[in-house]
Amino acid sequence: MKPMGPIPADFGVRDGALLIGGRTATALVRDAGETPLFVYDFAMIERRIARFRAAFPSIDLHYALKANPFAGLVHRIAPLVDGIDVASMGEARTAIGAGMAAYCLSFAGPGKRDAELEFAIAHGVTINLESVGEAQRALAIAARLGLRPRLAVRVNPDFELRGSGMRMGGGAKPFGIDAERVPELVRSLASEDVEFRGFHIFAGSQSLDPDAIIEAQAAMVALAARLAEQVGVAPSRLNLGGGFGIPYFADDVPLDVERIGAALEAQYRARPAVLANTGFCLELGRWLVGEAGVYLTRVVDRKESGGQTFLIVDGGLHHQLAASGNFGTVVRRNYPLAVAHRFGAEPDEVVTVCGCLCTPLDRLGDQVALPRAEAGDLIAIFLAGAYGASASPSAFLGHGPAPEMLVGTP
Amino acid sequence: MKPMGPIPADFGVRDGALLIGGRTATALVRDAGETPLFVYDFAMIERRIARFRAAFPSIDLHYALKANPFAGLVHRIAPLVDGIDVASMGEARTAIGAGMAAYCLSFAGPGKRDAELEFAIAHGVTINLESVGEAQRALAIAARLGLRPRLAVRVNPDFELRGSGMRMGGGAKPFGIDAERVPELVRSLASEDVEFRGFHIFAGSQSLDPDAIIEAQAAMVALAARLAEQVGVAPSRLNLGGGFGIPYFADDVPLDVERIGAALEAQYRARPAVLANTGFCLELGRWLVGEAGVYLTRVVDRKESGGQTFLIVDGGLHHQLAASGNFGTVVRRNYPLAVAHRFGAEPDEVVTVCGCLCTPLDRLGDQVALPRAEAGDLIAIFLAGAYGASASPSAFLGHGPAPEMLVGTP
Repeated sequence: MKPMGPIPADFGVRDGALLIGGRTATALVRDAGETPLFVYDFAMIERRIARFRAAFPSIDLHYALKANPFAGLVHRIAPLVDGIDVASMGEARTAIGAGMAAYCLSFAGPGKRDAELEFAIAHGVTINLESVGEAQRALAIAARLGLRPRLAVRVNPDFELRGSGMRMGGGAKPFGIDAERVPELVRSLASEDVEFRGFHIFAGSQSLDPDAIIEAQAAMVALAARLAEQVGVAPSRLNLGGGFGIPYFADDVPLDVERIGAALEAQYRARPAVLANTGFCLELGRWLVGEAGVYLTRVVDRKESGGQTFLIVDGGLHHQLAASGNFGTVVRRNYPLAVAHRFGAEPDEVVTVCGCLCTPLDRLGDQVALPRAEAGDLIAIFLAGAYGASASPSAFLGHGPAPEMLVGTP
Repeated sequence: MKPMGPIPADFGVRDGALLIGGRTATALVRDAGETPLFVYDFAMIERRIARFRAAFPSIDLHYALKANPFAGLVHRIAPLVDGIDVASMGEARTAIGAGMAAYCLSFAGPGKRDAELEFAIAHGVTINLESVGEAQRALAIAARLGLRPRLAVRVNPDFELRGSGMRMGGGAKPFGIDAERVPELVRSLASEDVEFRGFHIFAGSQSLDPDAIIEAQAAMVALAARLAEQVGVAPSRLNLGGGFGIPYFADDVPLDVERIGAALEAQYRARPAVLANTGFCLELGRWLVGEAGVYLTRVVDRKESGGQTFLIVDGGLHHQLAASGNFGTVVRRNYPLAVAHRFGAEPDEVVTVCGCLCTPLDRLGDQVALPRAEAGDLIAIFLAGAYGASASPSAFLGHGPAPEMLVGTP
């Protein structure tokens, strides 16, 4: 037997059946008409946003759309956040289509094409410049359009977020502009007809260590202040990135966000004079939406081989690549999963849950302890709200994408 | 500097420019209208098929469609092979739509849904049964439809393909039916109104060791003969799987297919009497199409960070997940790549080639030695013909899929 990660505490149970947004998995699948199926409980996302607001009253909240671009979800989240961070023109279209004012968008990403820069400038989206070359291209496009571009500078900090799942700052990086080169760029922008929107600093993601996040945020504020002093320009905004992780695996502990909030609020109150008029913001994706998603898939076959029991389901890594351990992880570990109609029941057996794809990579639960399930039963795979449907190779082996559904008030 | 894998020898050069199917990358991109772009040289695939025919004159050739389901490619390949192996109803539709007779299709995969079994039976596709439960479901559906199903049995062998990139046989596996359970199933099928199509045995894939493949094929033939003796039924076909690898990385050596052919032909001539009327076939995907594909992507930015040079391109892991090292590999290694207009030129510098996605996973060439390239230049990433476009998360970060194009006679 191998351990599973923790199931988020928000899901209810009625007569042994898993409830998502107050409804059984069976009822949700009936509504969708098919399996597999992604279900997102928006009430959980609303509670996350409320928790952020309580812990960070002075800090703006941006949604990092890359975590989950499902249109229904973005439509609901847009009025509840102060901005949306996008990583492509396609994501910008999704955000604008969901009702977010283009002015509240910021666009980061190391390979923005000219057409993407033009779209951003034409709509008034803030561009987080990732290089001097990108700055020159943006200025040339703005001049051609006769528009005043909104430009921020993404800084590659000279430190990283300790213990983060993905390091995105420190050392040689494709992201942002090395801190020591930033002053010259900002000074050159000051001589152009641009709206300077401040700094974007991103040190890492998927961290569960509040001390590491607090330390990185303090270093970011200090770096932003130092840069602002050097260039003599007060940034209107300081985007401190995100990095808030969620527990995926056994022994992962949920992040103490309130402690981070207290520390950042103190940082904000004591910020250096040069940042007096600077708005702080955090961009969060995974922490807002990751735990609210469940991937429901039906057992197609139950079989024995070599003394082990396999449950073969109709979903797989074509929808949930990360759960199969094939996206950004070196060692495969089990996401939490459950038999939907026997939620919370004691396990009867140890089984391996495989997706339907004809590849040994398609393993969704490796030797996990579950209540007995038969063909036809629904398996719930949790933590499917972020980097699931959109971050998986849905065309692989010709099964196509899975439908997505939003539940939760209203 | 880190090594790159070998560039296939089939690509030409004219005035320093890479030629794919006799045309320059620049001309191909102009035709496609955009980058990134997948180009498949069908002449290379034809040569591969001819090479197989010469080396394996007595063995049927099936195309494993999962390697590359691009419709144009399947349309051209269908008349040149004896069958197509599919892994879903979607893939079966693609093969039939490309003109392949449904009778020449076989359908493997551990999680076939009832609708997929029904589709296969209704069209006369051979179903490679993966479990006793699947056999029962197929029989029930055939009875309901009043049709005689074509059924083969996928055997999970009691050995594996040594040194294969992916082991798909031996020990507890989700694939096929453990060899010792096969006789009982085949005997029970003999009492039903079915067309028994023989055995499918698949031991592993992406092997570059001819001795290991020869050894595994000999063991498969022996296993099939033993099973046939036990059940007293001569199988009409023995599908020996595939497993032929291609060199992706430095020090990989191309597979000596002719040696495997000589050995399998000898096996076939000396096959046990019970297999006298059994047709042998191999199902190949990657070896047929993998080296024929090139992914062309344009440099968007050239930047320095921390003393290193980065080329940021407009493609990325959303199209070429495997090249980024994030699909089925533990240690990231470099696929071969080249600057398209300076093909074969001496390298000027060591650069890291990053995709446009805002994630540190999106690295397509890590500290590779290349001729100098500027923004606007085209980078060719080789070995993009198999498990590329269809096996990558094309929706990730909102850039969308890349166009695919076929070149080569006619």
